[in-house]
Amino acid sequence: MATDSWINETLYPAWGQRFLVVRELARVKSEFQDIVIFESATHGRVMVLDGVIQITEADEFVYQEMLTHVPLLAHGAAERVLIIGAGDGGVLRRVLQHPYVKRAVMVEIDGEVIRLSKEFLPGIAGDAWSDKRAEVIVGDGIDYVKRAPDASFDVIIVDSTDPIGVGEVLFTDDFYRNCARILTGRGLVVNQCGVPFMQADELRDTSARRRRFFPHVTAYVAAVPTYVGGFMTLGWAAKDASLAMTPVDVIRARAEQAGISGMTQYWTPEIHTGAFNLPPYIARHLPTA
Amino acid sequence: MATDSWINETLYPAWGQRFLVVRELARVKSEFQDIVIFESATHGRVMVLDGVIQITEADEFVYQEMLTHVPLLAHGAAERVLIIGAGDGGVLRRVLQHPYVKRAVMVEIDGEVIRLSKEFLPGIAGDAWSDKRAEVIVGDGIDYVKRAPDASFDVIIVDSTDPIGVGEVLFTDDFYRNCARILTGRGLVVNQCGVPFMQADELRDTSARRRRFFPHVTAYVAAVPTYVGGFMTLGWAAKDASLAMTPVDVIRARAEQAGISGMTQYWTPEIHTGAFNLPPYIARHLPTA
Repeated sequence: MATDSWINETLYPAWGQRFLVVRELARVKSEFQDIVIFESATHGRVMVLDGVIQITEADEFVYQEMLTHVPLLAHGAAERVLIIGAGDGGVLRRVLQHPYVKRAVMVEIDGEVIRLSKEFLPGIAGDAWSDKRAEVIVGDGIDYVKRAPDASFDVIIVDSTDPIGVGEVLFTDDFYRNCARILTGRGLVVNQCGVPFMQADELRDTSARRRRFFPHVTAYVAAVPTYVGGFMTLGWAAKDASLAMTPVDVIRARAEQAGISGMTQYWTPEIHTGAFNLPPYIARHLPTA
Repeated sequence: MATDSWINETLYPAWGQRFLVVRELARVKSEFQDIVIFESATHGRVMVLDGVIQITEADEFVYQEMLTHVPLLAHGAAERVLIIGAGDGGVLRRVLQHPYVKRAVMVEIDGEVIRLSKEFLPGIAGDAWSDKRAEVIVGDGIDYVKRAPDASFDVIIVDSTDPIGVGEVLFTDDFYRNCARILTGRGLVVNQCGVPFMQADELRDTSARRRRFFPHVTAYVAAVPTYVGGFMTLGWAAKDASLAMTPVDVIRARAEQAGISGMTQYWTPEIHTGAFNLPPYIARHLPTA
């Protein structure tokens, strides 16, 4: 019998999670990052980028549901959605569950992430890759938003790594300025903002930056099992401040109409609206109105 | 320079968290369990019982606030509170913040946990140990509830380990039957119910058991950074089903009157009421009404 093999997450130098590895499935050095996919004993298959856990089959529903259904149902009539990153296809799949979405463009910089996800994590995206409404581009998100026409998207979802390495440009002034420009009048952008108990700077700095280009900036929370450290925050930047305050009965009616109700394991209308109520230890990192 | 020393939590055999240890402060084998207290690089001081993280200085506020303020403010006029376990004194400190509490009895089975907490984690309990309203008993919680008179407590807070080892008796029929008997008519009991993403059995089995003795059983959630694995659940068993549905404005008014508002880092009136909205992946483990 082989010796037990553990993978330690290296996101934080002095604390983190570890997984017992049943079998390593892929270990690739792409043009952009080190990619590892393994079969864990506890969480199904797991993808790791540069030592940081990105997704596990067992808990991906939490992050994907909250990153997708919250902005789409708060908007209520998003037809054109831009996804930056999310190479595993899980956000794309959830976006396409909304019947009024006519076009979903996904821009992932690392084609190897897409290729390996299709091969080893096929359940995450399901049929999304072949949906006629989906356009999958291997390219740089920062370039894409620079070139996209004004008011060409209703919702932008940024599923990036933390603002280090390849994901860093997705947290810059330049990126947010273009997001504001290419969004429609009720448009909004959401993005992953880290786990503030450990990474408060990420929430504070990027929220202040978004505030330069959007009149309404806040965040909402999700308890993602393998983004360890308590609540993770999802950043919210909107042109219309009322979207984050959409009443729970409106959200519920939209979800029922869209066929989202009953399909989720984490998202509910009550969790949607409640997620904007931040604990004081998180709220203090947001810009004051 | 010494080699880096890590402590791996052993709660789950194939997944868990690890801490870089700056300095070990105590390592004691008590009559009941192995107790380790160490200075971590990231979370202040940390107490470990039988290999399971119990408390860290950095994030104790989440668990303590939610385990204490939620039942006390939902009850609204609790004068007599029984605490089982919680040898670090953090729950006792929060209970005593409520000015209408006349008597707080704490029953901790392991005197070594109290002694070591006083020595190495003095900030967690603060002045609670010397409060005239506090009675601290080193003894067995199951025996205490057996002997306590009928209707002698308004709220019972069970801050136990998981239902293995020394904490197991605190999840039995016998224990809950006596809790129901010694509670007043509006009385309720809360207890830690594990992290359902990893320990769904604990929530399911103990909720079903509480349901035998209480007309209203549910759970509420808290995202505790070092109880890794997403939301942890706090079990709720009440004689009066309306308590869990106390409106947010009532909770807010009670918190303001009690002087709790503005003292918390996690608890807010909105988080209090929202915590009873469970994600479907958790709700399905609760007994149906």
